[in-house]
Amino acid sequence: MREVAIVAAGMTRFGELWDLSLRDILVEAASEALDAAKLDSLDSIIVGNMSAGQFVGQEHIGPLTADYLGLAGVAASRVESACASGGIALRAGFAEVASGMSDLVLAVGVEKMTDGADVTNVLASAADQEMEAYHGITFPGLYAMIATARMETHGTTEEDMAWVSSKNHKHGSMNPKAQFGREVSPEQVLASTMVAEPLRMLHCSPVTDGGAAVLLCPLDQAEKYTDKPVKIIGSGLATSTLQLANRADPAVLDGVELSGQKAYKMAGVEAKDINLAEVHDCFAIAEICCTEALGLVTKKEANKAAAKGITALGGRIPVNTSGGLKSKGHPVGATGIAQAIEVFEQLRGEAGARQVEGARIGLTQNMGGSGASSVVHIFEGA
Amino acid sequence: MREVAIVAAGMTRFGELWDLSLRDILVEAASEALDAAKLDSLDSIIVGNMSAGQFVGQEHIGPLTADYLGLAGVAASRVESACASGGIALRAGFAEVASGMSDLVLAVGVEKMTDGADVTNVLASAADQEMEAYHGITFPGLYAMIATARMETHGTTEEDMAWVSSKNHKHGSMNPKAQFGREVSPEQVLASTMVAEPLRMLHCSPVTDGGAAVLLCPLDQAEKYTDKPVKIIGSGLATSTLQLANRADPAVLDGVELSGQKAYKMAGVEAKDINLAEVHDCFAIAEICCTEALGLVTKKEANKAAAKGITALGGRIPVNTSGGLKSKGHPVGATGIAQAIEVFEQLRGEAGARQVEGARIGLTQNMGGSGASSVVHIFEGA
Repeated sequence: MREVAIVAAGMTRFGELWDLSLRDILVEAASEALDAAKLDSLDSIIVGNMSAGQFVGQEHIGPLTADYLGLAGVAASRVESACASGGIALRAGFAEVASGMSDLVLAVGVEKMTDGADVTNVLASAADQEMEAYHGITFPGLYAMIATARMETHGTTEEDMAWVSSKNHKHGSMNPKAQFGREVSPEQVLASTMVAEPLRMLHCSPVTDGGAAVLLCPLDQAEKYTDKPVKIIGSGLATSTLQLANRADPAVLDGVELSGQKAYKMAGVEAKDINLAEVHDCFAIAEICCTEALGLVTKKEANKAAAKGITALGGRIPVNTSGGLKSKGHPVGATGIAQAIEVFEQLRGEAGARQVEGARIGLTQNMGGSGASSVVHIFEGA
Repeated sequence: MREVAIVAAGMTRFGELWDLSLRDILVEAASEALDAAKLDSLDSIIVGNMSAGQFVGQEHIGPLTADYLGLAGVAASRVESACASGGIALRAGFAEVASGMSDLVLAVGVEKMTDGADVTNVLASAADQEMEAYHGITFPGLYAMIATARMETHGTTEEDMAWVSSKNHKHGSMNPKAQFGREVSPEQVLASTMVAEPLRMLHCSPVTDGGAAVLLCPLDQAEKYTDKPVKIIGSGLATSTLQLANRADPAVLDGVELSGQKAYKMAGVEAKDINLAEVHDCFAIAEICCTEALGLVTKKEANKAAAKGITALGGRIPVNTSGGLKSKGHPVGATGIAQAIEVFEQLRGEAGARQVEGARIGLTQNMGGSGASSVVHIFEGA
């Protein structure tokens, strides 16, 4: 297997991008990555996207991307695993380069969510259609059940979740591409509107448009494109039951745990070696479950890790320095790539006010549905 | 790069499967492949599917498949490139095994099209939404334009196209899994209802439910699962403009040509070495364009290849011995895998009445939209 590096990245701002269509977003993110590497050709494009078909009536966005980049002819396809689609695109690109099938692969994630579709219903198609969505449950409801179960069995509180949101908003306030540029206090989170008990509005990530792209190549060719390549040293993908009710313990994300174990094993590192992580905080409760499942914090620390500053910038293991899905925004198909970009910039020492000093190894964890799919990548700086 | 083989296959019957849901179809096709290899575990599942989100409100069908096979935990994801999604799944599975990331990969294609969605509209999302679909064009119309252009510049006739349908129905009448089990004469094709001039109903492939699965592993492990592995020796993926009107010549499928060149180069074979081929005859005109673009017939032969028996069973280069999309049926996400299964069975000498004597090297070509994506695989028997 060839060693694989990220050599360039591009990303739109995240938010309600009324002035950009799906294709505009794809072209902007992809062009920025190509420009950074001074490239006008590629071997392959892999697009991560959850639901352009349902959101804007456009499937087949692999060739759309190639075409609108002026690269019709180039191999291109799309991958999907609900909100983990971006992470899956990174993994598919990794496999193409590692196998030797392609040298230069662009992995680009995108979602255009604000063009008028019934967003909550479209997102519910990531749940089990026959056993969950058909009966009316939506994702705030599913994560509310995870939160309720965890409050019951693991002692998590609404305040613990509020601290996660507050921490991520603070990080996001330092990220010029984040959807929300302002801080919120735990008190403000706890005073926000109830969405699905015990989750309030400020416990939930927003609806977002955005795109993000990274350029992959074999490590031994990386110096052609950058002085500071970032190696991908581990990739782990795992699933759990699609239906939340079929899990042994709804408060434990077993697919996340398994995906982490696979990635650690491949990378030859342990959780304690990770200097920073981007994890999938679609709801604040998810960050608590995921950091625990990945071993980034101990079971004892997990609930209060944000409140105690363990996962804040300057803490032992900074989590979601980008602002996370909560503050940076969550254009579902783009999220997994945007996470990789944050780690890429951190390991290159280019994260500005959000820089984690001395960061050498980073991790991303991106998941779909209520944790039915989870993909973890581990990165090492030069 | 490790050598990769197909060691087992499974496939539902194709047709209007009122008694089977999306997940039933996935499980039936996948289980048949697993049973054939006497396996109850896997490293990875890759699902090819165009539009389960739009057709039945279900995205995230990678984990759905793992879960309903009783394999929750296993890595699983979905790939999409419109009607080429099945071929893309095969290619993605090939990359995973070739790279060493996975040993046992199930590539499964599926589409459930008859559950009440507006099929023509959903399929139109494979076209350029802003430049084509929005303005009312659908796929019969797009292929009618390709046919009209080719009649004008290449002398193709309605009769030539009718012979393609008639040949493929004859082949399909020998395939017990085909949607249509009966022969049709060229005269019957020419007497059928006009859909989009010059394409009549019997020039068009049908709306179909179905699933198909193949099991991939490294060639050097294949003997654990079968005595007759079939090697994948070439994989080529290419794109063209998404919008038909942007091509230099709408009668020439340049993406198909390029995908073929890539696959031939990788396999180290030429068109004349191919003993049989499954090509993407979504409309009869497509088979004429594709066999020419792949060099399976000469430019001079292409129009009359079916009429003269060149591409019929017993001819120089039998094309679509399965019945093709026209007669076997076209559950869009499953088609690319079903093509590979026909070649797998032919190269193992298991195609029964449809057997091509002495077949050693076979080719599949699967495309999306009006040819904006095309994926070619080349296979060699043991």
